[in-house]
Amino acid sequence: MKQYLKQHEWHIIEEGLNPHYNKISESVFSLGNGRMGQRATFEEDFSGETHQGSYVAGVYYPDKTRVGWWKNGYPEYFAKVLNAPSWIEIKIKIGDTVLDLAKCKIESFNRVLDMKQGLLQRSFTATLADGKKVSVDSKRFCSMADGEVGAIRYEIVPINFSAPITITLPVDADVVNKDSNYDEKFWEEVYKEAEPGIALVTAQTKKTNFHVCTAMQYKVQAEGKDIPQQVSVTLREKYADNVVVADLKQNSGLVIYKYAVVLSSENHPKDKLAAHAKTKLKAAVAAGFDKLFAEHAKVWAHKWEECDITIEGDVAAQQGIRFNIFQLTQTYTGEDERLNIGPKGFTGEKYGGSTYWDTEAYCLPFFLSTAEPKVARNLLVYRYKHLGKAIENGKKLGFKDGAAFYPFVTMNGEECHNEWEITFEEIHRTSAMAYAIRDYIDYTGDKNYLTEYGLEVLIGIARFWNQRVNWSGDKGKFVILGVTGPNEYENNVNNNWYTNYLGAWTLRFAMSAITYVKASNPARYAEIVKKVNFQENAETDRWKHIVENMYYPFDANRNVILQQDGFLDKELIPVKDLKPEDRPLNQKWSWDRILRSCFIKQADVLQGIYLFEDDFDEETIRRNFDFYEPMTVHESSLSPCVHVILASKIGYKEQAYEFYLRTARLDLDDYNNDTEEGCHITSMAGTWMSVVKGFGGMRVRDGKLHFTPFIPDQWKSYSFRLEFRDRVIKVKVGSGGKVETMLESGEPLEINVNNKVFTLTK
Amino acid sequence: MKQYLKQHEWHIIEEGLNPHYNKISESVFSLGNGRMGQRATFEEDFSGETHQGSYVAGVYYPDKTRVGWWKNGYPEYFAKVLNAPSWIEIKIKIGDTVLDLAKCKIESFNRVLDMKQGLLQRSFTATLADGKKVSVDSKRFCSMADGEVGAIRYEIVPINFSAPITITLPVDADVVNKDSNYDEKFWEEVYKEAEPGIALVTAQTKKTNFHVCTAMQYKVQAEGKDIPQQVSVTLREKYADNVVVADLKQNSGLVIYKYAVVLSSENHPKDKLAAHAKTKLKAAVAAGFDKLFAEHAKVWAHKWEECDITIEGDVAAQQGIRFNIFQLTQTYTGEDERLNIGPKGFTGEKYGGSTYWDTEAYCLPFFLSTAEPKVARNLLVYRYKHLGKAIENGKKLGFKDGAAFYPFVTMNGEECHNEWEITFEEIHRTSAMAYAIRDYIDYTGDKNYLTEYGLEVLIGIARFWNQRVNWSGDKGKFVILGVTGPNEYENNVNNNWYTNYLGAWTLRFAMSAITYVKASNPARYAEIVKKVNFQENAETDRWKHIVENMYYPFDANRNVILQQDGFLDKELIPVKDLKPEDRPLNQKWSWDRILRSCFIKQADVLQGIYLFEDDFDEETIRRNFDFYEPMTVHESSLSPCVHVILASKIGYKEQAYEFYLRTARLDLDDYNNDTEEGCHITSMAGTWMSVVKGFGGMRVRDGKLHFTPFIPDQWKSYSFRLEFRDRVIKVKVGSGGKVETMLESGEPLEINVNNKVFTLTK
Repeated sequence: MKQYLKQHEWHIIEEGLNPHYNKISESVFSLGNGRMGQRATFEEDFSGETHQGSYVAGVYYPDKTRVGWWKNGYPEYFAKVLNAPSWIEIKIKIGDTVLDLAKCKIESFNRVLDMKQGLLQRSFTATLADGKKVSVDSKRFCSMADGEVGAIRYEIVPINFSAPITITLPVDADVVNKDSNYDEKFWEEVYKEAEPGIALVTAQTKKTNFHVCTAMQYKVQAEGKDIPQQVSVTLREKYADNVVVADLKQNSGLVIYKYAVVLSSENHPKDKLAAHAKTKLKAAVAAGFDKLFAEHAKVWAHKWEECDITIEGDVAAQQGIRFNIFQLTQTYTGEDERLNIGPKGFTGEKYGGSTYWDTEAYCLPFFLSTAEPKVARNLLVYRYKHLGKAIENGKKLGFKDGAAFYPFVTMNGEECHNEWEITFEEIHRTSAMAYAIRDYIDYTGDKNYLTEYGLEVLIGIARFWNQRVNWSGDKGKFVILGVTGPNEYENNVNNNWYTNYLGAWTLRFAMSAITYVKASNPARYAEIVKKVNFQENAETDRWKHIVENMYYPFDANRNVILQQDGFLDKELIPVKDLKPEDRPLNQKWSWDRILRSCFIKQADVLQGIYLFEDDFDEETIRRNFDFYEPMTVHESSLSPCVHVILASKIGYKEQAYEFYLRTARLDLDDYNNDTEEGCHITSMAGTWMSVVKGFGGMRVRDGKLHFTPFIPDQWKSYSFRLEFRDRVIKVKVGSGGKVETMLESGEPLEINVNNKVFTLTK
Repeated sequence: MKQYLKQHEWHIIEEGLNPHYNKISESVFSLGNGRMGQRATFEEDFSGETHQGSYVAGVYYPDKTRVGWWKNGYPEYFAKVLNAPSWIEIKIKIGDTVLDLAKCKIESFNRVLDMKQGLLQRSFTATLADGKKVSVDSKRFCSMADGEVGAIRYEIVPINFSAPITITLPVDADVVNKDSNYDEKFWEEVYKEAEPGIALVTAQTKKTNFHVCTAMQYKVQAEGKDIPQQVSVTLREKYADNVVVADLKQNSGLVIYKYAVVLSSENHPKDKLAAHAKTKLKAAVAAGFDKLFAEHAKVWAHKWEECDITIEGDVAAQQGIRFNIFQLTQTYTGEDERLNIGPKGFTGEKYGGSTYWDTEAYCLPFFLSTAEPKVARNLLVYRYKHLGKAIENGKKLGFKDGAAFYPFVTMNGEECHNEWEITFEEIHRTSAMAYAIRDYIDYTGDKNYLTEYGLEVLIGIARFWNQRVNWSGDKGKFVILGVTGPNEYENNVNNNWYTNYLGAWTLRFAMSAITYVKASNPARYAEIVKKVNFQENAETDRWKHIVENMYYPFDANRNVILQQDGFLDKELIPVKDLKPEDRPLNQKWSWDRILRSCFIKQADVLQGIYLFEDDFDEETIRRNFDFYEPMTVHESSLSPCVHVILASKIGYKEQAYEFYLRTARLDLDDYNNDTEEGCHITSMAGTWMSVVKGFGGMRVRDGKLHFTPFIPDQWKSYSFRLEFRDRVIKVKVGSGGKVETMLESGEPLEINVNNKVFTLTK
């Protein structure tokens, strides 16, 4: 845990450069706009610790799988988030000395991420080795108004000298992935061009053949006017630049504007990329930094209107929740149904892939409540479009007849991951897609989604479960053997309760969807039946049989659900009895020791109770919480938020607040000592849920919003907004738990607060 | 399965070159002498399919671990069997044409491995692309009389021409391992030398710094006399040769003798290697091929006297058992206690490491019965010497207080393997060391081994089990969670019966060893107590408690032992109901599907019953055999032999014979389609056990040999010899099961045949 960043309601602030935390800062201060993004590396050279990373949404590389020992069924490749061509560099040489903060005496340094406006600012005063002192002020953003445009304003003032300055303005596609399995470079050059004023490189990815054109134009000005300058250009493999030489006059600022356009062949014809980029650049330059920024900031203002959460009386908590919302929002805008939410967003390479079950289980509720319904719908359609691949993935593992087994990690619908206990066995993820459909329909009321897309997916997933269960003669029940639940600190277990419960629920939900579509749109139903060769009676008879005879492990003595068969053979020890030097277990214990211990990475029984809360009375929830929570080490970033929600539900207010702190400032305080590799983007949605579903107690039941709010003692008030069925509702909870609800737009709406019904009007 | 090799009692014969099977032949025709060995690659160039491999016992390389996803506790390296400098090449150029059988018209080709004499012979007549026809006859051996010496006699006769011949005679240390994790070369040059008549290279391994000097001298003769020749030498990195040019006269044979000496720094001072090699080479050349071969053949004659098994009436079976015995004998001679029996011996790289539990569980009985006791004793001492590393290995995984966890794969006592389900969880292997001690003492009567070495090892292993069990409050018993049994088609299971049984037995055996040593040598006992800080009462009280309260899974309905908890939740399907296209499962099914199926790689319940046969009555053995055998796919080469032994025991004669065929000709017929990677050396000992313990029914009980022989209907007779307590006994079983036993040397001995006691005298 590190607390070197200053707390502020809207800003993330680093005062004074922390070179050893620089990679953490590069993650935390990352920028993105849903289409592209980059880590907060410096514009000028930096020879200190740094991890350069630029990313273009949807552009990936299928890196050949690396394993110790091959298991039949492993995928051939792991899709890597690609470090993409970079445009943010503005390299400065003063006289003969390179400006490099690792080699300067730094007199002041300030890095600020203005979350309200999506602006990364940096200002510093530094003395070079040769005694020249400069002040720099830089501003950078990736436009939320046009996801293909980015801009930098970089002002440099010579404090104690006049000298020539050499400014190198590159676009550079000669970049590497740190996590390349075989030290391979993934980009090849297609085209490059440089002439005074402009430089561009079009590069393509090996194997996947994505083309990306990265283009830049610049202005070097003083007092708003172009200044005399000599320009030369460099072209080398995968690289183009302009090198500008001008005179720097003591105490007279020089401003460099660098405008960039990044176009992907996902959105433009390959043969038009360079031409389009130049046209677009021209327009950006014509508009100028200030206008581009104003358009960008306007979008952010609108986004914050939709999704801000305020917390009064607790700046750390306020900054934390805004940081989570800011990162989520700049990672995924929901405009492109081909995209999804990578675990590191645009903040790092780690984990590769773009899509985990995190999206459905953690991110969907955030986007449902804070954006128009099409954003969440796009996330669902993304998986609908991968249905064919999910069926192929199932086939590869021996399933048949259209059984859909969604991948654990994917870019394009194909499985990438290569640990058998996860890839093959963490099967609950395939039903995350089913649950997301339910969640979407519950929230939006858009039952037509079933007819259009949902039913096909549900039939596929139901078929998977139908084949994945087997009859245990011994138990006289259906069982599910050899699985890994969300608690990944158990592998290859039998009858993980969460998995069994979710599997059976999926079969029931699929049957209810069949009933609905059949009744509401018989023609479409007939079409689906034909398309997927659905043998309705034969298939659903067996599904019913499974649902009625599913086995659920249970401890009658303690009257608690059992995580899996055999759980009670373990020594049941509370986490508080662990020695500090044993934590975190995943860094201190060998894997087998973790596996046979009772300690839980994220408690999947509680996850199941959270998902199906209405199936359990409060006493049951409390009993299970009391049993599992003490054994949970929360070594998954996805764990604490569920505990906030359940603890809130059962009135464990202090605990709820403690769990909230674990999730809200995970990256800001580098809680798990891994933020330098990127931020935990998907779990950030869990922080949002912690406030809204946890403290706010928001639920949707029978199409109506319910709230049972409480306020942590540490706060004066908190408020959040929800988009719900064409309304915008604001909920504010004050001291003593006083609740104010307000309809900000839309028709009157009946809501339920603390079990009382109100009708909200404007 | 491929049956291109001819059957013969003493020879392995390839008639006509089978280029597509050449890598299989290279494995099968491998030569070794316990100190070094090599695959049967050709002396001359061969541009067809080939996998070059020479090996020097004990010389390995710790190749940096390669994994997909790191698990805490994994070893840093995997010790690779090293492809060592090669001396067998004799490259021939006639005029300007290289002799390369892949580019010739082959008129005849014969490759013969004479197992009786340990001689690899090859003769062929081939026409080169330019029409020149030659006959070649080569003979090669690695001396069993002096493990550092090898020799080749290579005769070439020009059939239809006279021409100059260029003969290149290299020693080449510029070799690679096919299985190098990061495409690295493992050897570096230390010294090289070449002058007319001699060439040598000393190379050292990176990291481990083994030095190996490989030296060669040659003669080129006709009619027993040196012929006129021009000699030049080549020296390049890691390579030295002599190049001889002579005249080849039509129909007049020219004979090349190549003598080699291979010295390792394991056996000689590094700074003396080259000098020693030259001295030794000189002696070898002086002795000449025929004398060296005679000495070598004499050792083989003696070896065969010790360990031959004859089978009359079934050439395939006779060839099979001799091939198994031949390979075992040339892999391990038992003279060097630092060495062990690698799974591929000197026949390939695969699996790396040198030592698996195979040695104790499968090979030890062979060496106990066919060699003087010190050979088996050396195998035990090898593990004694690794006790410190086994304790370290345990510590790394969280064990303490001297708990010995022997590695699954090792070269020097350190763990190499990196699959968590094996490395961390296949824990039964640590007790294979304990069982081997029992086996050794039972067979030899050498109880003093306990005092000298055994007790320390047993206390270490007992301490491991003491910590590895845990009390199950639920069961009111001790349980062992999260293990992989010998049946590796189940991973991370709870209460694998074999493991639980072996663990508890180890505790009992350790306690009996304590009692023995304490009574027989109190001073030594006191010394051990002090050395290992043994708290006798406190420790053994707890061991007793564990032994008395160990949990063993059992099915009361079927009255059979259960492989593990939850086994009865599976669908129990016999192997015969599997479709042929699903076999072998490990190539056709994904790993999870194998894991949750009932199918068994090698039946560990039966393995346990085999090890502790006297604990079970025949009816119990039959019931468990009838339950598990039908679900066993025998996809481990170690599986069928145990089934031969148990099937023989319970009178399932036809089945016993079928299982025997699976094991005896595994490599000769390339049963598992993997012999090209090397032969299955350790399972060959299982073939020997199949005959002696299976058909012969040999057991040792209370220090006495017991036999309950039967003969498969397909055989006329079979016989085997045993070394037993200073006697050599020959057992011959004829048709109708008629048994002849003969004392070939030693004092009279009481034996038990078919439950009748006889006294054998000469």
